[in-house]
Amino acid sequence: MIKAGIIGATGYAGSELVRILTSHPEAELVSLTSQSYAGKAYEEAYESYRHIPSYICEEENINEMAEKCDVIFLALPHGVASKKITEDILSKCKVIDLGADFRLQNADTYESWYTTHYAKDILPEAIYGLCEINGDMIKGRRIVANPGCYTTCSILSVYPLVKERLIDLSSIIIDAKSGATGAGRSLSLGNHYCELNESVKAYKVASHRHTPEIEEQLSYAAGESVVISFTPHLIPMDRGILATCYAKLSGSYTYEDILNVYKKYYGDKYFIRLTKKGTFPETKWVKGSNFVDIGFTIDERTNRVIVIGALDNLFKGAAGQAVQNMNILFGLDEKTGIDLVPIFPA
Amino acid sequence: MIKAGIIGATGYAGSELVRILTSHPEAELVSLTSQSYAGKAYEEAYESYRHIPSYICEEENINEMAEKCDVIFLALPHGVASKKITEDILSKCKVIDLGADFRLQNADTYESWYTTHYAKDILPEAIYGLCEINGDMIKGRRIVANPGCYTTCSILSVYPLVKERLIDLSSIIIDAKSGATGAGRSLSLGNHYCELNESVKAYKVASHRHTPEIEEQLSYAAGESVVISFTPHLIPMDRGILATCYAKLSGSYTYEDILNVYKKYYGDKYFIRLTKKGTFPETKWVKGSNFVDIGFTIDERTNRVIVIGALDNLFKGAAGQAVQNMNILFGLDEKTGIDLVPIFPA
Amino acid sequence: MIKAGIIGATGYAGSELVRILTSHPEAELVSLTSQSYAGKAYEEAYESYRHIPSYICEEENINEMAEKCDVIFLALPHGVASKKITEDILSKCKVIDLGADFRLQNADTYESWYTTHYAKDILPEAIYGLCEINGDMIKGRRIVANPGCYTTCSILSVYPLVKERLIDLSSIIIDAKSGATGAGRSLSLGNHYCELNESVKAYKVASHRHTPEIEEQLSYAAGESVVISFTPHLIPMDRGILATCYAKLSGSYTYEDILNVYKKYYGDKYFIRLTKKGTFPETKWVKGSNFVDIGFTIDERTNRVIVIGALDNLFKGAAGQAVQNMNILFGLDEKTGIDLVPIFPA
Amino acid sequence: MIKAGIIGATGYAGSELVRILTSHPEAELVSLTSQSYAGKAYEEAYESYRHIPSYICEEENINEMAEKCDVIFLALPHGVASKKITEDILSKCKVIDLGADFRLQNADTYESWYTTHYAKDILPEAIYGLCEINGDMIKGRRIVANPGCYTTCSILSVYPLVKERLIDLSSIIIDAKSGATGAGRSLSLGNHYCELNESVKAYKVASHRHTPEIEEQLSYAAGESVVISFTPHLIPMDRGILATCYAKLSGSYTYEDILNVYKKYYGDKYFIRLTKKGTFPETKWVKGSNFVDIGFTIDERTNRVIVIGALDNLFKGAAGQAVQNMNILFGLDEKTGIDLVPIFPA
Repeated sequence: MIKAGIIGATGYAGSELVRILTSHPEAELVSLTSQSYAGKAYEEAYESYRHIPSYICEEENINEMAEKCDVIFLALPHGVASKKITEDILSKCKVIDLGADFRLQNADTYESWYTTHYAKDILPEAIYGLCEINGDMIKGRRIVANPGCYTTCSILSVYPLVKERLIDLSSIIIDAKSGATGAGRSLSLGNHYCELNESVKAYKVASHRHTPEIEEQLSYAAGESVVISFTPHLIPMDRGILATCYAKLSGSYTYEDILNVYKKYYGDKYFIRLTKKGTFPETKWVKGSNFVDIGFTIDERTNRVIVIGALDNLFKGAAGQAVQNMNILFGLDEKTGIDLVPIFPA
Repeated sequence: MIKAGIIGATGYAGSELVRILTSHPEAELVSLTSQSYAGKAYEEAYESYRHIPSYICEEENINEMAEKCDVIFLALPHGVASKKITEDILSKCKVIDLGADFRLQNADTYESWYTTHYAKDILPEAIYGLCEINGDMIKGRRIVANPGCYTTCSILSVYPLVKERLIDLSSIIIDAKSGATGAGRSLSLGNHYCELNESVKAYKVASHRHTPEIEEQLSYAAGESVVISFTPHLIPMDRGILATCYAKLSGSYTYEDILNVYKKYYGDKYFIRLTKKGTFPETKWVKGSNFVDIGFTIDERTNRVIVIGALDNLFKGAAGQAVQNMNILFGLDEKTGIDLVPIFPA
Repeated sequence: MIKAGIIGATGYAGSELVRILTSHPEAELVSLTSQSYAGKAYEEAYESYRHIPSYICEEENINEMAEKCDVIFLALPHGVASKKITEDILSKCKVIDLGADFRLQNADTYESWYTTHYAKDILPEAIYGLCEINGDMIKGRRIVANPGCYTTCSILSVYPLVKERLIDLSSIIIDAKSGATGAGRSLSLGNHYCELNESVKAYKVASHRHTPEIEEQLSYAAGESVVISFTPHLIPMDRGILATCYAKLSGSYTYEDILNVYKKYYGDKYFIRLTKKGTFPETKWVKGSNFVDIGFTIDERTNRVIVIGALDNLFKGAAGQAVQNMNILFGLDEKTGIDLVPIFPA
Repeated sequence: MIKAGIIGATGYAGSELVRILTSHPEAELVSLTSQSYAGKAYEEAYESYRHIPSYICEEENINEMAEKCDVIFLALPHGVASKKITEDILSKCKVIDLGADFRLQNADTYESWYTTHYAKDILPEAIYGLCEINGDMIKGRRIVANPGCYTTCSILSVYPLVKERLIDLSSIIIDAKSGATGAGRSLSLGNHYCELNESVKAYKVASHRHTPEIEEQLSYAAGESVVISFTPHLIPMDRGILATCYAKLSGSYTYEDILNVYKKYYGDKYFIRLTKKGTFPETKWVKGSNFVDIGFTIDERTNRVIVIGALDNLFKGAAGQAVQNMNILFGLDEKTGIDLVPIFPA
């Protein structure tokens, strides 16, 4: 059994991780910490855990956790993990960071979008844990940067097109829609029920921090710098991300040409499901699962391709992929413990 | 492996059953039928099943199914199962009926609330599959009548009070609230998104068919006839039932007196969770799980007890309890395959 | 034109009042105050007011406001109004208090459910502004206590039955359901979108402060003390209250007997609409209007009557009724400015 | 008083029209028809009308209606109005068509996206009733084609940029999000509560019929052919459209440059509200009103402008604009009867 610890277990991503690990057949959750609930039973934070394995939220002590765990998951605000992760920690256990600190290889980019980075020396060692793209490179690593929710959906939606240069790289626009869990459990007027309910809005227009993360990965795929427009929207629902991606085709391609490229990259990826021609993903069809559904069409009047991807932001967009990374790190089948049928309707 | 079949697999309860059985470690779904999707892949009905075990919806042939299955689940409108279930079927395999046809032992009551009953001879053999009450009586049966969603929640909420006569039996009022999946997948103006959303209403006031089912079971518990008032309400959400139950206390009891009675009956029942004093159940805390949460308070000003129960209508209120019954029938741990942590937030 | 002022204009009830008064043909909103937005444009608090009459939120100075206004509306937390309203204020202008401070004539009851009352001398002068019951008594008053949202719905639903003693007064149970605006705009985990959405729960079970308010009014109607059980529930929607009321009939009455009693009291009340036999109110049918819809049935098996009332908690349950009271106070047709068709679907 | 009639009064757009006209100070609704409710009281279709002006749904007879009305509104599926509107009708009364039949001046385009057009002779006379653009041209007309919901929002969002050529005309992408009322009251699995709730999806990707309507109007503005990509999405809410529009800037422009262009075209338009810099529209802020909120930013990294527009699809997107057109046609202030403050929260 893999001994796992979670730092930051009472946020929404942390709690989804607790849920998945509780049922994981090859892992055991031996320690979890929470700043706001330290010393309290986990069910004080989440009543869904009433009478379920009696987790107690601990004060954070990453050194002690590293001694007793095989892997530590961090689910923390940006800027915190880069202070906590050291060579010493990595020498004792593996680390999967659900935050942003190790996602960008370019520390300058990180610092211009986020804040000071305190572990630049460790950065080169971190692998971007987008399993369907970097699967083989993840094995054997000591630290995995688990991708963001928007980024997982966005990158997977357009990756084959970028890699194979079927599109004009300067033409990529990603219009993304997310459920409210993406904004976390911290209180704000924008997340007050009556303000968010029955409404839709864009936010952080052309300025969301997932933008450079998408760009860095797409640039690796393209072998040159890719700059995109990215606009997130808040949808009145709990879970789910839909990314509607637009790009100019670089030539004259048929639906089948493009489909073949998607099959080439994703044909053997269990968690990526291509929809039938004429059918497009809906977030509800992947809820509670690790699947990413992808569909596309060609807008012949404009020679654009429109690709739509959908995932559950807390699952494949956070905790599920983190466990997928753990499975890969420890040589398990990547599906172990996360091979769930979507829950519908819910 | 238990070989299972489902008749009526494309309604909401049927689809939840497919989902649970797909992941069940000791059961295998070998056959499923659907009137509307016969001959089609299951993912035609539910895109959540895209690329998942390639179930094909069959034409119904219960005799063939009985030959190859150890257990058949029926998820059908009332009046259909009583025509299909025969001694011959029961001699070949076990039957778990999610519909109403075998829930009422009193056929006259059935016929006055429903329609003609075509299998009165089999009725005495059917056991009411409310696992936490009838657990021991379920073992060894050939046919289980899986309780209704409202009834499971209502009966479990007040059973200890009735059994121990802590309340005036003529004073029971149950005000229940249900999510929209309770109304099924058939189209109607009342379930049209814009009509149901952002609204709450009562329906079938003092005339809902779950009333006699609750009454029959509570009468067994009381050893005398119990008549209740039952009012269901439709809530703008997908899943969940909350039953708010009111009754006059038959004497002077403290919170602890009542708590002890609940503990006596439910202390060893894994799927029933009593909330802490001052805390009451919310449907969200049990979503996607087989748990029933129960909390209560004494209204000292009126000497009434108010008990509140919550469950997921598609899980513990339908498919989850059906699988719990299967587990009991086949001598498995009752938790097998349904011991899921609630999904939150979702 | 009536010159109106609002103290506490940036809560949800206050903002609904601003909205109604902005369109009122016989009133003019000359001053509004807000603690949190003092000095700012009203659209800083509510962007719906973008470019609409340029209200500026003022610091509260009730004395100045009393000088320039004909009527002051207070939309404040309980315990505040009783400190602010003095004989001096009442000598200058009329007051309509949307809070709880002047609703209970019995100051002891107020103090046992709320807090210290600072204006007991004024209490006898305040009239309970439930327009359909106390209409005639409101005229000529200096101070009106605008009823609570739950209480308006609850009292109007059962008043004729209590007044005419068609029911056993000790048997009244009110199970109420409210949209989230009832909880106001203050942030709390319970009102965080992802926690409230897709769930239903009871709260303040047998302990909600609207209980004594309902009881005091029903006691006046009955001519003797009435004690009830009242349980509020939170529904995932913005607006609306549904009250499901249960009581034992005191004799043998037909549907028509009861209907006649309702018609006797409400036949000439424009804002009360009785539903047809077999039809029950839904909150959506009254949204954005001052209507209260009421329907009932007899549960013959138990000889209970079940009455269901519905209203918009921010409109008839707060700001709309406050303006109705203003209309009555100033001798206008009570419908002036609030005679809106419900907005549907919304 | 303007005598108005409505054909197709029981769809969602029709019912919103009934609601607005019921309160309109200068119009009187003298006749309304409905295929499905002919002969029944209007409250049979919409219980919100319980006890409100006793409209009776009539069988449609447009000739009779034309005799007694000054204006007829049509709220019908496409292909029906072009059969009904004749020179004879137009000689008797004015017509405002909320459907698609007279929106496209190019009949070939109409026939390639819709169906046969039966009134091509009348087409040249129809004016596209986008009030803020064509206001002056509407006066004196006999027939107005009321714009679609998506189109009103989309065109108004980008019109100044197109007109002044601040953008590359071939680069326009409109990603639109709509509440479920946009899909009407007809039953379908896609609009079944449990299927639409808690999900987001795209539909009619690159093939929605509002595309040619947007293009025709933008082409008029540009003086040359404009082709766009348009993708609508369905959002789990009742009302509201948000259009997120992307385009390449044709030169180097500042925020203020663009703002000035918007002010030039919209500075004197009451129903268009420009948001402050850094603030973007949300559908909830315009609900129940005739306002269109517009905000934009420059994505400097890509030299794209991102413009976001929001409106209430049943109000400014349908019935409200139809009444605005009526006001213009009859020489009233365009705001008459539709100058409502948005209802919030709702």
